[in-house]
Amino acid sequence: MTRRPEREKAGRFLAEGANAVGAALEREAARELFVTERAAQAHPGLVTAALEQGIRVSAITERAADGLSETVTPQGIVAVCDLLDRPLEGLLAPGARLVAVLADVADPGNAGTVIRVADAAGADAVILAGDSVDPHNGKCVRASAGSLFHPPLARVRDTAAALEACRAAGLRLLGAHGYAETELDSMPLDRPVAWVFGNEAHGLSPEVLESVDEAVRIPIYGAAESLNLATAAAVCLYASAMASRRSNGG
Amino acid sequence: MTRRPEREKAGRFLAEGANAVGAALEREAARELFVTERAAQAHPGLVTAALEQGIRVSAITERAADGLSETVTPQGIVAVCDLLDRPLEGLLAPGARLVAVLADVADPGNAGTVIRVADAAGADAVILAGDSVDPHNGKCVRASAGSLFHPPLARVRDTAAALEACRAAGLRLLGAHGYAETELDSMPLDRPVAWVFGNEAHGLSPEVLESVDEAVRIPIYGAAESLNLATAAAVCLYASAMASRRSNGG
Repeated sequence: MTRRPEREKAGRFLAEGANAVGAALEREAARELFVTERAAQAHPGLVTAALEQGIRVSAITERAADGLSETVTPQGIVAVCDLLDRPLEGLLAPGARLVAVLADVADPGNAGTVIRVADAAGADAVILAGDSVDPHNGKCVRASAGSLFHPPLARVRDTAAALEACRAAGLRLLGAHGYAETELDSMPLDRPVAWVFGNEAHGLSPEVLESVDEAVRIPIYGAAESLNLATAAAVCLYASAMASRRSNGG
Repeated sequence: MTRRPEREKAGRFLAEGANAVGAALEREAARELFVTERAAQAHPGLVTAALEQGIRVSAITERAADGLSETVTPQGIVAVCDLLDRPLEGLLAPGARLVAVLADVADPGNAGTVIRVADAAGADAVILAGDSVDPHNGKCVRASAGSLFHPPLARVRDTAAALEACRAAGLRLLGAHGYAETELDSMPLDRPVAWVFGNEAHGLSPEVLESVDEAVRIPIYGAAESLNLATAAAVCLYASAMASRRSNGG
């Protein structure tokens, strides 16, 4: 179930470790829980929560936990979960103010970290568009540190449709682009926005750059060539989140 | 030369790849350059720059490049460089406005990413304090994407001495701390500041928390438990850098 075709066929994925399992249970997305004796003793609250939700809890050996795990040091607790993505239609609730769109983001660790930052910044939704990685990938799940289960997620192959949905929801489309003329700190950032982040190596495609309302550059005050994707997303999403709250009186 | 005792004995470290080698040459920190035929053809400017600095350039085979490299896809260009750290004394020039202090940061990839963000945000210096990783570690060099060669760096075992030096330079000490009462967006951020970031797993030590002028929390607007080190550093350093420039009229 850890490979993509199996995941999609089964409609399930694995969330591993206490943080992810806890988030899965809060979201009521867990369907089955596997725990070692050691993990059951370390996290009795998670076992209880699963049983209260009527979820089957199965004891497994350390060796079986190693087999299920993708990490070097398995925590011995793994939940089988429903896939989290939902249709684009209806994803953006009225009044949405902050959305993160990942366009062709390839690395699952990067995608997970951006989902975590988007969640922290209070994003109303995250859209994985174009050729972006499957967010249910084990590395993405881990990098998100539970945040995969928080903001509503959609996966949309057609990036133009994703951007159009954001625009229709009243969001201004800002593309994070290292070579843009407009700098982040010269922008009014207190308005509802969909931030669009591109591929790690190639950035935003020409089509996406044409579709956004504005391409925006994070100013580089020192000698660095650029920021990496996750830190750039952190700066953009928090700049918007903080500006929006400042102008609304906190 | 890739292991720490060897590095310290030799007073040299390896910078691998065109970006890092270019940054090393700009800083005049390279002492010897090794290139494959393929890399010499791809980066003639780097070879010329090295020769103009009177640095010995040696042709190596692809196999030798693999042996020197720590990466899966070696770029075939490696510079032997002088260690970059300097004494704490004299590190902070008068008028320094932004310094990043890494206290017990263990992971070299994290350290390199924070150095890159600090450079981008225009930091006047970076201090690796306490048990922090050696910044000349190959993974740190790579994660810094050349930025290791930009801001002045010091390595200081005695964290208290590092903080004292920042204070003596007129910097306000702000500790990034997930459980602090004071929120980032309630702070005046336009003043000269040394941001202190702690260990990935344990955060700032009680001693550091007592020494800083203020512990500051990045507000979590959504359901995420926390941010990771690099994205938290990005938010704090850019919040200060942008506020400082706003109040100084850009």
